[in-house]
Amino acid sequence: MRHFLTTEDWTKQEIEALLEDARALKAAPQSGRLRGKRCALLFFNPSLRTRTSFQVGIADLGGTSVVLDAAGTWPLEVEPGAIMDGEAEEHVAEAARVLSTYVDLIAIRAFPKFEDWSREREDPILAGFVKHATVPIINMETIVHPCQELAMLMALQARHGDLAGKNLTLTWTYHPKPLNTAVANSALLAATKMGMNVTLLCPSAEYMLDEKFMEAGRGLAAAEGASVRVSHDIEDAYRGADAVYAKSWGRLDQIGLPMEERLTSDDLRRFIVDEDKMALTNIATFSHCLPMRRNVKATDAVVDGPNSLIIDEAENRLHVQKAVLSALIGS
Amino acid sequence: MRHFLTTEDWTKQEIEALLEDARALKAAPQSGRLRGKRCALLFFNPSLRTRTSFQVGIADLGGTSVVLDAAGTWPLEVEPGAIMDGEAEEHVAEAARVLSTYVDLIAIRAFPKFEDWSREREDPILAGFVKHATVPIINMETIVHPCQELAMLMALQARHGDLAGKNLTLTWTYHPKPLNTAVANSALLAATKMGMNVTLLCPSAEYMLDEKFMEAGRGLAAAEGASVRVSHDIEDAYRGADAVYAKSWGRLDQIGLPMEERLTSDDLRRFIVDEDKMALTNIATFSHCLPMRRNVKATDAVVDGPNSLIIDEAENRLHVQKAVLSALIGS
Amino acid sequence: MRHFLTTEDWTKQEIEALLEDARALKAAPQSGRLRGKRCALLFFNPSLRTRTSFQVGIADLGGTSVVLDAAGTWPLEVEPGAIMDGEAEEHVAEAARVLSTYVDLIAIRAFPKFEDWSREREDPILAGFVKHATVPIINMETIVHPCQELAMLMALQARHGDLAGKNLTLTWTYHPKPLNTAVANSALLAATKMGMNVTLLCPSAEYMLDEKFMEAGRGLAAAEGASVRVSHDIEDAYRGADAVYAKSWGRLDQIGLPMEERLTSDDLRRFIVDEDKMALTNIATFSHCLPMRRNVKATDAVVDGPNSLIIDEAENRLHVQKAVLSALIGS
Repeated sequence: MRHFLTTEDWTKQEIEALLEDARALKAAPQSGRLRGKRCALLFFNPSLRTRTSFQVGIADLGGTSVVLDAAGTWPLEVEPGAIMDGEAEEHVAEAARVLSTYVDLIAIRAFPKFEDWSREREDPILAGFVKHATVPIINMETIVHPCQELAMLMALQARHGDLAGKNLTLTWTYHPKPLNTAVANSALLAATKMGMNVTLLCPSAEYMLDEKFMEAGRGLAAAEGASVRVSHDIEDAYRGADAVYAKSWGRLDQIGLPMEERLTSDDLRRFIVDEDKMALTNIATFSHCLPMRRNVKATDAVVDGPNSLIIDEAENRLHVQKAVLSALIGS
Repeated sequence: MRHFLTTEDWTKQEIEALLEDARALKAAPQSGRLRGKRCALLFFNPSLRTRTSFQVGIADLGGTSVVLDAAGTWPLEVEPGAIMDGEAEEHVAEAARVLSTYVDLIAIRAFPKFEDWSREREDPILAGFVKHATVPIINMETIVHPCQELAMLMALQARHGDLAGKNLTLTWTYHPKPLNTAVANSALLAATKMGMNVTLLCPSAEYMLDEKFMEAGRGLAAAEGASVRVSHDIEDAYRGADAVYAKSWGRLDQIGLPMEERLTSDDLRRFIVDEDKMALTNIATFSHCLPMRRNVKATDAVVDGPNSLIIDEAENRLHVQKAVLSALIGS
Repeated sequence: MRHFLTTEDWTKQEIEALLEDARALKAAPQSGRLRGKRCALLFFNPSLRTRTSFQVGIADLGGTSVVLDAAGTWPLEVEPGAIMDGEAEEHVAEAARVLSTYVDLIAIRAFPKFEDWSREREDPILAGFVKHATVPIINMETIVHPCQELAMLMALQARHGDLAGKNLTLTWTYHPKPLNTAVANSALLAATKMGMNVTLLCPSAEYMLDEKFMEAGRGLAAAEGASVRVSHDIEDAYRGADAVYAKSWGRLDQIGLPMEERLTSDDLRRFIVDEDKMALTNIATFSHCLPMRRNVKATDAVVDGPNSLIIDEAENRLHVQKAVLSALIGS
């Protein structure tokens, strides 16, 4: 039995095989690979795109999905030995074991709560399910977002072919609220695994991603003869890029602070992806996971331009997730 | 590719064909017409009846449905060029294009917010999806409710046969809160399209429907040699009616006012449909879309009487929607 | 046409037949027994386990399910003749009749509101649906929880074989909030129907279950030559037990009081199921419906011990509900 929790658990060759299958599934969407299989989609945070693409994908493969909306309503205890007289009505030990008797696979979205990163970086809810469940688990976004990684890679490969040696600029962008770092962590992991040279552009050292992901990215890059560097200089970071990937994320050192103290400065709006910056690149493609605030993170001209991959990447979620489902429980 | 946004886009003959197919689907509910087809049901407002009838209907035809509950949780930007630093996390341009890659049809419920009728009467969310989506769209109630129109017509035809020349009284009724005008607009459009003479009964000129629907209704009636008239006199409006259709709606001139200033007068409770009023008619049938407040909009005696079509009309939602789905994406 | 509202409506032999079929369905989960059948799952209260097991079970049998989440959003009028100018937008007469035209079966969860037990003990929402619906109805927990009863019996039979003459201790446990009595009522009904001697353990007379369930339990027990007794003495109640079933419930005499006045005393935490108490028994099995607060209702050592049936019982929900669905609408 195997899980899909992070691409770090899958070799480059295995990732390539998933992408190859995703392309086959795009060409021939429907089959009986999941006939008789039931999947629980457990959302501790809202979702529309992920929910739709999983539900459609499972149906395309002949399986059954059940959506469990735990957003805000199902506090789950994860500590072993806890005396449960607080908010949590159920322990993950029971939730995971019972769901495992009903379904053949559990997919989970559980964002960090941005209260205590030292605990949240251990991905406690996902780890709890992995510990107690007896069926495969898919990560639908926690502190990484491996399904988005595959979708990004599939979109980049369709445009760039072999990604080895290509330059990807991963740029932080302004957003009115501090967001999850998962997609940024994941873009770094996915790009380096395929041998891309990654430039991480962010306003200052305070905006750095967790060192465990930086270290993993550097290791993956090194194994492919590629590199990871950090820049706080916008022009420098865009110059020579083959691909620009944009995402906003909150400062890890501000997690736990009241939200009003964590708002980023208006001055940081200058990180918006626009045509001037893109003109510095090697006619780079542009992408961003969705949803995306237009004219805040990227201008309409970039988003709607010929090198924008955002819709392709979003579409690919459907295809790559079907490949992952097939790999884990398909027949 | 064709949408089902309003019956105004469909000829009388096309509407008759949909109704004919709905009757066939009532007799033989299950088939494979939608095999391999996926439909997204996007609700910006709550629904139980519409959701159930669409989900069951799609399953009956062998298709897959995904329910997306956007009620209150997914503010969508619709303005081109907007700088999205407010509430909206996503632009309809992306929502519509991405959903179009996952599904074969999008059905949308998006009531006006009753904040600014001059904008809301343009049906901005539905229009945004029509502009950007690349798959057919069904209107599940915005400022009109064309699925309800078909259900109403199917129920009326089953009882009255050919509707041409029959008299329909569309009566406003009291309700503790100002409601959407969609069903009233739609009842007017549907009845006039089939050549019914429509009497619109409401307390005063302030309760008139939007002139664009009045004008459309008059045009449709004229084309069939029928008429539209407005009355504020209850006895006059009921006299000679073959069918009474009841609905409450809020005053358009009060949209945007605080809710407490918009409440209608208790004196208007006299518009309730009761046996005394029905006795003035030509043994008229009675209907109302559901839900319906008993003994506020109509008395139990009328609702449970032999000429009440409310359950038939509600049931017909299932059959007519299957006909529409078949017409748009069926094989 | 037959409903599954309470096991009181089903004979011991019929219950045995359902359990026999549940074991067959556990061995061979998938079939076409519900092909072409549609089921509405109507939740006036949240659910994850019940929802999942019903959705998966219906899919396993080839049927279609529609989940209707009425939790907090759909106040339904149940009084005949009501003038509906309050909160309720719809009468159960319409809700039940319309759903009956869309689906082949309606399953309902509707907890009492704990406002007025004299009314709530009549199960008004379920009774309203039974009165007006024209399709079979399944109780997914109201003031009893018959699906949980079957799951409990199936788990007990797997471990104990014939249950007649075995001793079951049904123990109240502490919980920070007053809970529904449904599962306790149901455990009493199910165990006595199978001829178990039931000892009801609770802190004092104020914690007694409704006399109508006590009386029903005594009658069922008498018919099988078994007994029901009440104890407020923990050691006495555990001694000689073959099975311990734990559940917390609120005092009926405090229903309607402000929540803060209804909280039980910390002193009552002593009712926790622990190894010392279990050591008094005849190596009893332990069970509890889920969710369950660990180390408040039962200690980890008991919950994770070799005689704990909680996961088996939860799994059985899937199998027994499929048997009930088959009995009501299967082909």
